Amino acid sequence: MGKIITISREFGSGGREIGKRLADALSFAYYDKEIINMVAEKSGFAHEYIEKYSESAASRQYPIHIAGTFMTPVQMPSEKLQITQSQILKELSETGDCVIIGRRADYILETKNPFKVFIYASHMDDRVERCFAKDPASKGKSHKEMEKNILSVDKQRAKYYNYYTSHTWGKMHNYNLCIDTSAVEIKTAVEIIITAIRG
Amino acid sequence: MGKIITISREFGSGGREIGKRLADALSFAYYDKEIINMVAEKSGFAHEYIEKYSESAASRQYPIHIAGTFMTPVQMPSEKLQITQSQILKELSETGDCVIIGRRADYILETKNPFKVFIYASHMDDRVERCFAKDPASKGKSHKEMEKNILSVDKQRAKYYNYYTSHTWGKMHNYNLCIDTSAVEIKTAVEIIITAIRG
Repeated sequence: MGKIITISREFGSGGREIGKRLADALSFAYYDKEIINMVAEKSGFAHEYIEKYSESAASRQYPIHIAGTFMTPVQMPSEKLQITQSQILKELSETGDCVIIGRRADYILETKNPFKVFIYASHMDDRVERCFAKDPASKGKSHKEMEKNILSVDKQRAKYYNYYTSHTWGKMHNYNLCIDTSAVEIKTAVEIIITAIRG
Repeated sequence: MGKIITISREFGSGGREIGKRLADALSFAYYDKEIINMVAEKSGFAHEYIEKYSESAASRQYPIHIAGTFMTPVQMPSEKLQITQSQILKELSETGDCVIIGRRADYILETKNPFKVFIYASHMDDRVERCFAKDPASKGKSHKEMEKNILSVDKQRAKYYNYYTSHTWGKMHNYNLCIDTSAVEIKTAVEIIITAIRG
């Protein structure tokens, strides 16, 4: 079994970029949006559906208690998506060293002793700036609108994570290393993680 | 003005050892219990009193509202101690590069842009083990008693920090780097911080 590094991240904190650069530097496999295609192939769900709900809580789509039906949570489409995604993450983790972005991989692969990283930015302005720079289509948005969007994505991620795990998203003790990209540059964050896992 | 690294830490997480080794490796000044002597000299308070209350909240000793007296918070001995300690930390930070352990230095020196580290251990057993190893006099204690003691020190530190600052002790966003010594060895934690501040 290879080494697994999981990267959880606040939206706009640069976590995805850190994960990609880290995988390149270490010659590890990198799994982020790649997982969407794999889930689509295995589950038969549409690519767009998976992209939308692979990190969103089922509770946003269906109430847990559906009066007058016999539907159990496991029969809900989003629950099936999560089960398929979990199976794929477990299979991928068996194939060798890898970096996995989000998708509660830190929790799903807990028994495989992953090195769990959380990337955040202590200054909201840094996240807003990064989001504007990454998405040229967002130019029409105001600073306030972008901030609202960022917080909304974080809220979805937290809701998803907390719903499907017994942990709390973004709680320090769930992770082995938490890096603030308002104080640490992306390239330095990569070096820090490499230092950490080489021991 | 030199570079300031502040180390906040859970009790038994190895934070003090990391701070000392870090200061040695970087040839930075190291301030921990040294501060107690400086406060004693400046304030006239007894060494033991300062040791006991330099990281404890005044609210544990005196209520804020003391009926029937004209005593204001600033006149309370522990408040005077905190003011003296803050002055000393500010003076020390002017003298050159340094590592400071606890004493809400991250908050007091915020305008001087310190690099703020938080050391924790995700597994309580690691903290218990470290405390037993560090204090031979504790051998008579049970595992449960040691755990209770550890949580009590953490609680005091949090109460002290939250009382004298507008922040929350141990909240990720107050720090630039948070390291889990249940997953990262002490020597590696030192290397990680050096990597972080060299950028």
